[in-house]
Amino acid sequence: MTAELHKYISQIKPLNHDAMEKARLRLDSLVKPPGSLGKLEDIAVQLAGISGELHYDASKRCVITMSSDNGIVEEGVASAPQAVTHMMTLNFVKGITGVSVLAKQFGADLIVVDIGVNADIDHPLVKNKKIRKSTWNIAKQDAMTRDEAERAILIGIEAAIEAVNNGYTLIGAGEMGIGNTTTSSAILCALTGIPAEQSAGKGAGLKEEAYKRKIKAIQTALLNNKPDPDDPIDVLAKVGGFDIAAMAGLYIGGAYMQAPVVIDGFISMVAALTAARINPSVKDYMLASHKSFEQGFTHASNALGVEPCLHLNMRLGEGSGCPIMFAVIDAACAVMRDMGTFEQANIGDEYLDEIKEGDNFTV
Amino acid sequence: MTAELHKYISQIKPLNHDAMEKARLRLDSLVKPPGSLGKLEDIAVQLAGISGELHYDASKRCVITMSSDNGIVEEGVASAPQAVTHMMTLNFVKGITGVSVLAKQFGADLIVVDIGVNADIDHPLVKNKKIRKSTWNIAKQDAMTRDEAERAILIGIEAAIEAVNNGYTLIGAGEMGIGNTTTSSAILCALTGIPAEQSAGKGAGLKEEAYKRKIKAIQTALLNNKPDPDDPIDVLAKVGGFDIAAMAGLYIGGAYMQAPVVIDGFISMVAALTAARINPSVKDYMLASHKSFEQGFTHASNALGVEPCLHLNMRLGEGSGCPIMFAVIDAACAVMRDMGTFEQANIGDEYLDEIKEGDNFTV
Repeated sequence: MTAELHKYISQIKPLNHDAMEKARLRLDSLVKPPGSLGKLEDIAVQLAGISGELHYDASKRCVITMSSDNGIVEEGVASAPQAVTHMMTLNFVKGITGVSVLAKQFGADLIVVDIGVNADIDHPLVKNKKIRKSTWNIAKQDAMTRDEAERAILIGIEAAIEAVNNGYTLIGAGEMGIGNTTTSSAILCALTGIPAEQSAGKGAGLKEEAYKRKIKAIQTALLNNKPDPDDPIDVLAKVGGFDIAAMAGLYIGGAYMQAPVVIDGFISMVAALTAARINPSVKDYMLASHKSFEQGFTHASNALGVEPCLHLNMRLGEGSGCPIMFAVIDAACAVMRDMGTFEQANIGDEYLDEIKEGDNFTV
Repeated sequence: MTAELHKYISQIKPLNHDAMEKARLRLDSLVKPPGSLGKLEDIAVQLAGISGELHYDASKRCVITMSSDNGIVEEGVASAPQAVTHMMTLNFVKGITGVSVLAKQFGADLIVVDIGVNADIDHPLVKNKKIRKSTWNIAKQDAMTRDEAERAILIGIEAAIEAVNNGYTLIGAGEMGIGNTTTSSAILCALTGIPAEQSAGKGAGLKEEAYKRKIKAIQTALLNNKPDPDDPIDVLAKVGGFDIAAMAGLYIGGAYMQAPVVIDGFISMVAALTAARINPSVKDYMLASHKSFEQGFTHASNALGVEPCLHLNMRLGEGSGCPIMFAVIDAACAVMRDMGTFEQANIGDEYLDEIKEGDNFTV
């Protein structure tokens, strides 16, 4: 590992617990039963821990979408052809895809990175960080070299650092890559030990034959490539993808810069789990957005120990769930910033003790 | 029942199935695997069914919060004193409560209605629709007369009609009333037959003794007042509250005016269930927002047959979950309005069939 990558991975600051304590006290002083705003309060406390400040300005936000191709598609594990990765990467910057539309709706910029699309892309709005055109087929060999895996992680880290340096205070982690639920499933199996049947889903309706090929491809890759579960970078190199490695880098880079990073769906969650296996402190800077319809998602989110806020049965990827979560984060920031205290609410001490130790207002 | 109330209840139009079919076709033409945006697609289709139009403008929205007191508090079922209903009703219009802050954050107006607060309120921003100062104690007698229950429903209906006539195209249903999780639980028991222990929760931390009193009060009310499960208005009158009856009216009034109404937490959900028991077609106009932490919530949402989009462990009430759901609805409207088609995305027929019958892009 280069000294630079090692620096980023090893220098993640812990959350500011003083600020978190102050945030909890402030939330408990607001005119509501303690804890009654649930995860909105947890998010506000986390943001205080991340920033060291009571109030968080999440208004400048972006989704960073990593596009890449996967050699595994040779095995017939995906019904969409590989060329769709290329086309969708261009469609992102045309503003017509799910993530484009949702990012715009919630005031977020979309940053598109080509980390390994199997085509030449020359577009001013697509960042060319291509490592190589597509990974190799994991059913036949490792997806990439270890050096490539580390470069992909570093590209993700640098993308997050650049975003924070450009003023973004909230980042979402998205992806595009035909074949990448197969690689994500393989990573999840390698990191958690669950069987391929639990890790791999049928997506929006993979046919039975293709699903069987997907399971088989994952099993073959795990058996032949022997990823080391105690070495997440080895797992990325042997059964992963450039997109997933770069997304793991986004989480690490966000944490390094003390900026929150929002997790999207299944692939984004697997990348988050991988990043947290590289350094568990990275998790402190993550926020789970939505519960993907992909069956492996819950295994991954449980392994990471996070709970998504939105249950929308979405399964699009691209980072499309992140902007909706940005609205939930806005809600958390607004509560912290704008709600009045019991004192301002003319609810005096004679009631205060009773309410604080007791029940919610609506009981 | 007055002819007027009967008119509103009986004249709910069915959804426009032609428009819903067109909406599904449009969604399936957008550059994503069919159904991959999950509930966002369902919401867009529902809004098409409600409005008859492909695109829905949900930008003018409000939360209507019904404030009322409950005689049951005499039994010591709530830890917050009854005076808190009065104070919070004033705090709503001061803009410092949870629902005030969240409504503002998501561009919604807050409309506050006094339907039975146990105090004189003379405030230009609180609509005085008081039926009476507090219901009676349901552990000793019926909460209200049937005539009062019908008047409360009518007030809710008229509030929704007025909102739609004032240009609102999206309404949230909120409440404030110390003691109203007890009345909601009693209604839920009466309508579904579940025991009080499953219906009543401890809110944000009701102490064990008070919780036992709450269970006992609900059991006593059900036993003595004998609400008729086949007559939802009878249930409201015998074990309900003015707030819940008026919220049931909001759903009915919204449906009558063909406007979507968003359900908040437990009490709002019980009111929604009651409205759907009065006329099942009302359900077509409802949207569930968040899964309340109150244990009875899921019984109520299952009985109604709706699934909330947000899992935030919230338990504040007031209508505070509705504005966050407005953002999810914005997401649904944006997808329908702004996403490009496969054709626009340069994903041609040679791929289209494969994708359409197949898998998601990220597999």
